[in-house]
Amino acid sequence: MRNGSSSLRGPLLACILAGLIATMPAEVATAAETPAGPLTIASQGSFFVGGRETRSDTLSTLPAYAPSGTITVDQVYVRYQIPVDARRPALTLIHGCCLTGKTWETTPDGRMGWDEFFVRRGFPTYVIDQAGRGRSAVSPVAINAVKMGRAAPETLPPVVSAGHEPAWAIFRFGPEYPQVFPGMRFPLGAQGEFWKQMVADWAATLPTPNPTVPALSELARRLDGTVLISHSQSGIYPFQTAALDRTGIRGLVAIEPAACPDPAKDDMAPYRDLPILVLFGDYVDLVPRWAPRLKLCRAFVAAANAAGGKAELVLLPEIGIAGNSHMLMQDTNSLEVADWLAGWLDRHVPARP
Amino acid sequence: MRNGSSSLRGPLLACILAGLIATMPAEVATAAETPAGPLTIASQGSFFVGGRETRSDTLSTLPAYAPSGTITVDQVYVRYQIPVDARRPALTLIHGCCLTGKTWETTPDGRMGWDEFFVRRGFPTYVIDQAGRGRSAVSPVAINAVKMGRAAPETLPPVVSAGHEPAWAIFRFGPEYPQVFPGMRFPLGAQGEFWKQMVADWAATLPTPNPTVPALSELARRLDGTVLISHSQSGIYPFQTAALDRTGIRGLVAIEPAACPDPAKDDMAPYRDLPILVLFGDYVDLVPRWAPRLKLCRAFVAAANAAGGKAELVLLPEIGIAGNSHMLMQDTNSLEVADWLAGWLDRHVPARP
Repeated sequence: MRNGSSSLRGPLLACILAGLIATMPAEVATAAETPAGPLTIASQGSFFVGGRETRSDTLSTLPAYAPSGTITVDQVYVRYQIPVDARRPALTLIHGCCLTGKTWETTPDGRMGWDEFFVRRGFPTYVIDQAGRGRSAVSPVAINAVKMGRAAPETLPPVVSAGHEPAWAIFRFGPEYPQVFPGMRFPLGAQGEFWKQMVADWAATLPTPNPTVPALSELARRLDGTVLISHSQSGIYPFQTAALDRTGIRGLVAIEPAACPDPAKDDMAPYRDLPILVLFGDYVDLVPRWAPRLKLCRAFVAAANAAGGKAELVLLPEIGIAGNSHMLMQDTNSLEVADWLAGWLDRHVPARP
Repeated sequence: MRNGSSSLRGPLLACILAGLIATMPAEVATAAETPAGPLTIASQGSFFVGGRETRSDTLSTLPAYAPSGTITVDQVYVRYQIPVDARRPALTLIHGCCLTGKTWETTPDGRMGWDEFFVRRGFPTYVIDQAGRGRSAVSPVAINAVKMGRAAPETLPPVVSAGHEPAWAIFRFGPEYPQVFPGMRFPLGAQGEFWKQMVADWAATLPTPNPTVPALSELARRLDGTVLISHSQSGIYPFQTAALDRTGIRGLVAIEPAACPDPAKDDMAPYRDLPILVLFGDYVDLVPRWAPRLKLCRAFVAAANAAGGKAELVLLPEIGIAGNSHMLMQDTNSLEVADWLAGWLDRHVPARP
């Protein structure tokens, strides 16, 4: 059933162990105490925001299903849990490229995800699947049009799967596959479970702005207040959402954003007086894909603040937290990072009245 | 942003209202009392079962992502909640065609889903996304091979979206779109939210048996005991899982299965001494797609029992519950049906030791 798994893990193990031994501090930094014991929530559930109906004659090439009809696309799936007596602001967790809301749930090595951690800390927590990802539908009509001979192969949607090996450096597990950065904290022993989180990515097939952006705006209005917390490829979405409509947006946290607004092109007015945090892990300047992104985000933070903003850029090593990969919400110190973030939110985003 | 929504809902409203007024009983059947108040759980989380690694050179046609590498496919996403002091058997909820695990969550009109209901009743509850659906990845390699000119258009995978109109009769909202069966209990006023649950279906592109089947077997072994509860297109999977390996399977519940094992072809031995329930809603014999399926399932139940089985087929109207569509876990009396099912489970599947 499996192939290739051992070939990926074999050379790695030696590499990881060497890295761990070489970099293990005399006293391991104490992670925030993992919350334990039963969890009591006031309520939970799921729903959709956004979406539009569209008609097509290429819904199916199978006889069991009719080719013509209406389907709904561009909606965004949202799952939430509300703590009892919630006074802290609602958080909306937005995953990155080639992943789904699973990003924020149980880590690959089986520890508590940020979704539950923040509920236990008193934050109503909403986890989405971006438009066209996970439980948020994609449309197969362009594929079926080609299969039916009604359109040319070059019109096929550019659907991407990120391979484990090329993704390695993007996730900053190491400079290139299968090397590992010394002290890097992603639980590589459970990488097989992490790779299972990855899904085909249809983002490049979707309109601009990504339909996730107006859907997040609808969610912010519906919740009457939420902090939008993005990761990686979704990094720009909260900024675009604020530029569309500030209603309901109580703060922006961009974790390892693939892009920040560009001060040379973008209006900084939407970010005035809004608590904004841009957060990066470790090794950023060691990876060619990430170094320029950090630089652009630094420029954005400076420009936003010059225009009356309250933006802040934090590199975790600068506050004494070392070894974080791009997937810092799954790293072995993920709850230490979450604990710090909860503190930042308490300091910058007031409790609910 | 939206189009077509009002065109779908306009003529319907009159139809629904007419249906409601015509068929409203003098005393509406009392649904089981909806559990309310805070929910305390012992634990929750998510993980994957199944999956295999495969290499490809057509992972991407975009310059930002390499075309060559290893991806993981055929895994099955599982999300669970464990009640405090759980003594009842673990349930695994398996959705049907063109849908995801969302099927069992909050209903389109915002009521509690079966996922939470059964946790509140003391059942550890596991909700999956079938292989190739929702948070369980599909592979784009066959699409990209055609886009790159390396394969012919007819090799494209047969990916299906079910249109609202043709799906109408399949879901048994009425005999055909937009007619509504008298007394039918699906919350059609919230149909827009229901259509957002539907996703493109890659089932026909997957190997036989569907990778969900061995993944369910892995899950049953891992949980050391679970009742597999299927719906619609997934109806045959629990039977196939039991035929593969009975380990960990404590019972089978097929809700509105698209197929039961065929006594003319399939061995009945795997079903000996196993509690089995086949459950259908209302109007089954009025829809040409469903009548023969019911007939086959009746034949299966008879054959399974003749071979030493403990199988039972129940039509809800025969036990006094009328008006259920194919989506009975979302109908307005969904918790009444769940309540009855919880009772059936208590009578047929012993509590955990």
